[in-house]
Amino acid sequence: MALSKKPVTGMKDIMPAEMQLRDYVIGVIKETYGKFGFTSIETPCVENIANLSSKQGGENEKLIFKILKRGEKLNLETAKGEEDLVDGGLRYDLTVPLVRYYSNHANELPSPFKALQMGNVWRADRPQKGRYRQFMQCDIDILGEPSNLAEIELILATTTTLGKLGFRGFQIRINERRILKAMAAYSGFPEESYDQVFIILDKMDKIGLDGVAAELKGNGFGEESVEKYMELFQGMEESENGLVYLTEKLEGTLDAEVGQSLKEIIASVKATKASEFEIVFDPTLVRGMSYYTGTIFEIAMPEFGGSCGGGGRYDKMVGRFTGKDVPACGFSIGFERIILIMMENGFPIPDGNKKVAYLIEKGVATEELCSIIAKAQEERADGTQVLVARMNKNKKFQKEQLNAEGYMEFREFYKDPLKK
Amino acid sequence: MALSKKPVTGMKDIMPAEMQLRDYVIGVIKETYGKFGFTSIETPCVENIANLSSKQGGENEKLIFKILKRGEKLNLETAKGEEDLVDGGLRYDLTVPLVRYYSNHANELPSPFKALQMGNVWRADRPQKGRYRQFMQCDIDILGEPSNLAEIELILATTTTLGKLGFRGFQIRINERRILKAMAAYSGFPEESYDQVFIILDKMDKIGLDGVAAELKGNGFGEESVEKYMELFQGMEESENGLVYLTEKLEGTLDAEVGQSLKEIIASVKATKASEFEIVFDPTLVRGMSYYTGTIFEIAMPEFGGSCGGGGRYDKMVGRFTGKDVPACGFSIGFERIILIMMENGFPIPDGNKKVAYLIEKGVATEELCSIIAKAQEERADGTQVLVARMNKNKKFQKEQLNAEGYMEFREFYKDPLKK
Repeated sequence: MALSKKPVTGMKDIMPAEMQLRDYVIGVIKETYGKFGFTSIETPCVENIANLSSKQGGENEKLIFKILKRGEKLNLETAKGEEDLVDGGLRYDLTVPLVRYYSNHANELPSPFKALQMGNVWRADRPQKGRYRQFMQCDIDILGEPSNLAEIELILATTTTLGKLGFRGFQIRINERRILKAMAAYSGFPEESYDQVFIILDKMDKIGLDGVAAELKGNGFGEESVEKYMELFQGMEESENGLVYLTEKLEGTLDAEVGQSLKEIIASVKATKASEFEIVFDPTLVRGMSYYTGTIFEIAMPEFGGSCGGGGRYDKMVGRFTGKDVPACGFSIGFERIILIMMENGFPIPDGNKKVAYLIEKGVATEELCSIIAKAQEERADGTQVLVARMNKNKKFQKEQLNAEGYMEFREFYKDPLKK
Repeated sequence: MALSKKPVTGMKDIMPAEMQLRDYVIGVIKETYGKFGFTSIETPCVENIANLSSKQGGENEKLIFKILKRGEKLNLETAKGEEDLVDGGLRYDLTVPLVRYYSNHANELPSPFKALQMGNVWRADRPQKGRYRQFMQCDIDILGEPSNLAEIELILATTTTLGKLGFRGFQIRINERRILKAMAAYSGFPEESYDQVFIILDKMDKIGLDGVAAELKGNGFGEESVEKYMELFQGMEESENGLVYLTEKLEGTLDAEVGQSLKEIIASVKATKASEFEIVFDPTLVRGMSYYTGTIFEIAMPEFGGSCGGGGRYDKMVGRFTGKDVPACGFSIGFERIILIMMENGFPIPDGNKKVAYLIEKGVATEELCSIIAKAQEERADGTQVLVARMNKNKKFQKEQLNAEGYMEFREFYKDPLKK
């Protein structure tokens, strides 16, 4: 049978140069998040199909790679549909597995629990440039912390990490689901239509304020509500501090603590005087996932064409597993986008290893070989990267190839010990 | 719908303490193998089902987690069997994917190519203690190196890594498929029964020489062959150097270069005077996988109950993909066994981070919070691990909990700045 040399559709082999970058980035992420007290955890790549199909994953639930039952449990003849054939699926994100994990182990974990997860997820999406069906996600989450310390720590940990990787001039955009809702309530939109309003609002980047107004009206929303809504956005734009303006305007509709907490997050992050990024209140930020209950945020890198990660507060998800809600907040770096940007823009990564190649002619006596190998081991113990290889007939070409791999120093060993 | 808190059957959640150990071990492995010039690569966890079912995986092919076709490709009504329902599977090892990868990219890779792979594999095995359906494998392979430099480098890289992790007194057992065959040929066993002979020989550890002889006879092998076979083993045991004895005995049946090469491997490895392990010729070592064509080896840790990894030469596998054979040799560390041993025996791992916990009372003014957060960021920039947390009402208990996580130093911040 002819075997296929290609990876499966939409997934990719990772070549050594990219892998070196990935390993470096993973190292920086783990070290930096570690300094904030995040601890690594891991869950299986396979989850029960019921957990993956519980309506927490939105559109991603349509993209699951499902796993066939095995042995006696698989009964093709009586199976009526897909649901009779499968019992598991590959996870499409790290949030659902994290919440399951936390629900399962809460009494063994510190509180609040600060988790770091780096792992592959799978989505049977239509393949396109830079988008694969297997990709790595990199999430930090804090469970059990109701106060805005969670948001502050998540934002600082993520931005510090991006700064260490060499990113500059990016933006953290932040908003609050409750502000979104209060704005809609203030304007008089019917509560059951909020999601529809937000989906249109989300297009602000592309179609502008007028475009949003037109589309809201086109969808049958009352002229008066749309006008009132637009006045809020215009008012913010014209005021010195949009968030202050908005919280005053929404007094009575919006819990005062929500605005106060958001101001505190922004002030605390700014107080670190990090030069590489800014944090801004963005009342048009929506973020898709329906599980968010409070703050939401996103990393904007206009220079590199858009969002490079995001997150928010989801205080109601643990309750789906345990019956008891636990405050939770998370931030996910768009790992694959970060890697792509770093590769395409040639971000420098340190490579401090001294590299030496030993070239050994064929026919060297066993005794001589033994002393060469022993010497290589000594150099390695001293920290040098030593490649031991057979000397090719075309030694010049071999050395050029090794130069390309970073080996600039050579030691040559011949059958005839007098030859040099 | 009630969601399941448990991981899927046979797979496990990894807790922070184990994860810390795993991250440490992964770091040591990557660094040490790096010093030998191995470069990391990665392949997708999903492979085409045809590649996984090509008879290279032996018994593992019965344990594949198979992935259901998606969209239009899935047609339940016309499907006659499993093969019509699935198009992919989770990989059961890293060797088949590596060979596919190499076949696909050989012209972009250096030659010889030294690959390091660390990744999860899946087998739908019966769950048992310390054995899971998802587990990590850690393989190094050298492709394109016909000489025994490959074996020497693989063995030294692996043993150096184990030494750095703190393992002492283990053994590398080494044998050669061609020696196994020559011994069987010399004894007069019929060629088509070699595999059956080797399966019985493999039990030597448990049933001893007499047991092997009895079982061979019981399986209908000729008395004379069994006697001759046993004489070889006895002869080796009584001689000073079993390998020398054997190569002399097998002269004419065994290619002299095979014995010479094996002697050279053993001598070269010994020449490094590594104190933590020994390398021994073991003529009873069989190793199951049918794809091995030359040397085979195994890490024996009798103290910890058996094998902790192994490998060998498989010169005929690339040819299955490309039609042209390429010399190949690999060594796999039993990653999960290593982790289990290190956990159960309390191997020490370094943890150099200075750890400080900031405890902030609820109600601290925004301005004060800003300066606390800024200070935490400064300490982190200086290399300290800083946990920022809300101060609990029961501060004493909170500190005890934090002590258990390694935080011994505290900074406390109160609403009333005069309080200490």
